[in-house]
Amino acid sequence: MLDNILDKVRALFKLFGFVPIDTPIVERLEILAAKGGDVDKEIYALGRAKANDSEAAEAELGLRFDLTVPLARYVAQHFNELSFPFKRYHIGSCFRGERPQDGRYRQFTQADIDIINIDRVPLSFDADIPQVVNEAIQLLGLKNYVFRISNRKILVGFLTGLRVENIQEVTRIIDKLDKIGRETVMKLLVDQAKVSSIIAESVLRLASVATSDIGFVDQVRQLGVQNELLEAGLQELEYVMRRVTSAGSREFSADLSITRGLDYYTGSVYEVRWNDHPGIGSIAAGGRYDDLASNYIRKKLPGVGMSVGISRIFGKLAQLGALDLSRKTSTDVLLIWEEQIEESQLQQIATSLRNRAINVEVYYAQEKVARQITYADRKGIPFVVFTRTSEIKNLVTGIQEPFDAQTFTGKAKNN
Amino acid sequence: MLDNILDKVRALFKLFGFVPIDTPIVERLEILAAKGGDVDKEIYALGRAKANDSEAAEAELGLRFDLTVPLARYVAQHFNELSFPFKRYHIGSCFRGERPQDGRYRQFTQADIDIINIDRVPLSFDADIPQVVNEAIQLLGLKNYVFRISNRKILVGFLTGLRVENIQEVTRIIDKLDKIGRETVMKLLVDQAKVSSIIAESVLRLASVATSDIGFVDQVRQLGVQNELLEAGLQELEYVMRRVTSAGSREFSADLSITRGLDYYTGSVYEVRWNDHPGIGSIAAGGRYDDLASNYIRKKLPGVGMSVGISRIFGKLAQLGALDLSRKTSTDVLLIWEEQIEESQLQQIATSLRNRAINVEVYYAQEKVARQITYADRKGIPFVVFTRTSEIKNLVTGIQEPFDAQTFTGKAKNN
Repeated sequence: MLDNILDKVRALFKLFGFVPIDTPIVERLEILAAKGGDVDKEIYALGRAKANDSEAAEAELGLRFDLTVPLARYVAQHFNELSFPFKRYHIGSCFRGERPQDGRYRQFTQADIDIINIDRVPLSFDADIPQVVNEAIQLLGLKNYVFRISNRKILVGFLTGLRVENIQEVTRIIDKLDKIGRETVMKLLVDQAKVSSIIAESVLRLASVATSDIGFVDQVRQLGVQNELLEAGLQELEYVMRRVTSAGSREFSADLSITRGLDYYTGSVYEVRWNDHPGIGSIAAGGRYDDLASNYIRKKLPGVGMSVGISRIFGKLAQLGALDLSRKTSTDVLLIWEEQIEESQLQQIATSLRNRAINVEVYYAQEKVARQITYADRKGIPFVVFTRTSEIKNLVTGIQEPFDAQTFTGKAKNN
Repeated sequence: MLDNILDKVRALFKLFGFVPIDTPIVERLEILAAKGGDVDKEIYALGRAKANDSEAAEAELGLRFDLTVPLARYVAQHFNELSFPFKRYHIGSCFRGERPQDGRYRQFTQADIDIINIDRVPLSFDADIPQVVNEAIQLLGLKNYVFRISNRKILVGFLTGLRVENIQEVTRIIDKLDKIGRETVMKLLVDQAKVSSIIAESVLRLASVATSDIGFVDQVRQLGVQNELLEAGLQELEYVMRRVTSAGSREFSADLSITRGLDYYTGSVYEVRWNDHPGIGSIAAGGRYDDLASNYIRKKLPGVGMSVGISRIFGKLAQLGALDLSRKTSTDVLLIWEEQIEESQLQQIATSLRNRAINVEVYYAQEKVARQITYADRKGIPFVVFTRTSEIKNLVTGIQEPFDAQTFTGKAKNN
């Protein structure tokens, strides 16, 4: 069940030292709108259905559209109580007034992890973030996805080394490579960005580099461009790729076509795509940014983080019928209420089992045993207990055997 | 930390066979407003901050103000997939455009449990609900509260037996006993409800009955009123009180002054008050109702449930400084990154510990050891590990001893 999966994701984040925060779903509109850009017109604003004048004079409020804006406000507000580097996770609902379509919802759940520090963020965290998110994606049950990593310094350094002037324009065009293809990008680079076809060719060769190991370093160097920033980017990405592939994970790809968020990210960038369902867009993304909360606080607070599209993933898994929704309960055992058995006896057995973390229901009335077993069966409760004979029956295997409440630990195999 | 406490509450609900549901925070306004009453003008409606005409033509939306309306819609919508009796829990945010004050928030978290069935709800569930909620309140760390239980049939039967005609009016007055006191209630009963002073006296005697065991039954019978409904109510409440007090809990009180929700509840009613903070109102409440979803579906769906005011409780605990917020992380162990140690060695140790559910951080840079220990100390991480000497230090006790990653299980005592 979804809730159980999210419990596991929460536990995973804690395994790596992330702490949960919870911020209000409702924020002041001016805070939400401060980020600017296209998202503005998707923000839901609040009003009172039946307000009088004094109530209408309240501050204008809206619903959060991501978990980054609330993080920034939270860090600024609690700056003196927080211990840095601050590692937080946040699983919560966000809202956008989009036209609902495949992979896009008006209310959706995001799972974000970020590490924020004062002044500088150690490179080690650039590897932690994709490592944790990759494990989270595997918990969600995804297969056949690719976890692309790049570093913004590589493209920017490369273009600088080639003395390209309109770097933003070129980056914006490269960002579309996936969608519009190599030839159109080539044409746009020459016609719109006014770079020579030789340089455009070189940039396209860089953007085509994708290796599942650190082979990308040599491939880029063979392109013959010399630049300090490029070199720094290559070294950072090499470190990250070494770290994330060290345990043998095969999902990672150093892919230099990834640019993400044109102005926001400044170093590592991440993007996860589900090969079977490219249409729903990236299922997780993020990167390193220079300043989280400059709108609110006069401290430089750089960070690195990723956001996982929980609703996007679960929505597709549900469409595919790939979510096991057959068990309608977490209950492990149903205590059958047989004739001549007092309810208080059953309640005592239930308490002793619950004290050992076994989920128990006592059947709610003294009815026909067959009816009670049907109840367990319909809900997918794997075990039923008969108190009169002290026996337990596994409804999955049909095996019936002696039952001892003090020693029984048997969670079902299909739990 | 709050999140850990709510994790325990979720686990508790599952121990008793409740399954989680998650419903949208945003519902259609017509669904929200269907409940009617005072809450209407507190409903937050959604609009788009910058909408054009076609977007403004969307269905009107609002934010849920409780978890009952969404439950009704959910049960009606998924009726054919659900297995009845349907036992659900729901921990979620609700929104009311109230003036914020002690114990009242515009966004607040409720934890609800309900059991819904078709046509009739077995009495056994009337005892399950307060039992589970009482355990939840104890998990939240509350002391000195009273868990009052009554049954609407008692007052209604009693008044019927006395041939009182305007039962609703009398009930409404009795409901104010806590606030306006015995004398004013007496006056209102005579002046407004037009009952004789003898009958008013008798009703007040009933409402004054409060016992921590089943003593209330005799006390009510001594008042000498004969009525079938009264008798049914007494028997139901006796059953519930026997069940909830059977494990020795001393928080419960059969208190006949409790009426709750004048038209909604029809049998058992529950109300929990925090003796130290009566000003914040009830911290949990609920009861048995005849029909959950008659607005949506032509089935009779009675139920019994309670709602716990998580924000109200946590808000007050936080004000009191009673929440242990000293540990800023769930991390159990920090691996110190000493000189001559490769990061990859530390990552391997971290992975082997995480595989055994131990929360681990690897320090993010090879810095002075004292600085790394300060990091652990500030976050409240209880253990640090020195890889070069294979030693572990408990920062709480100061004890340092040999460390073996394969056998270490030591969660800190103050975890």
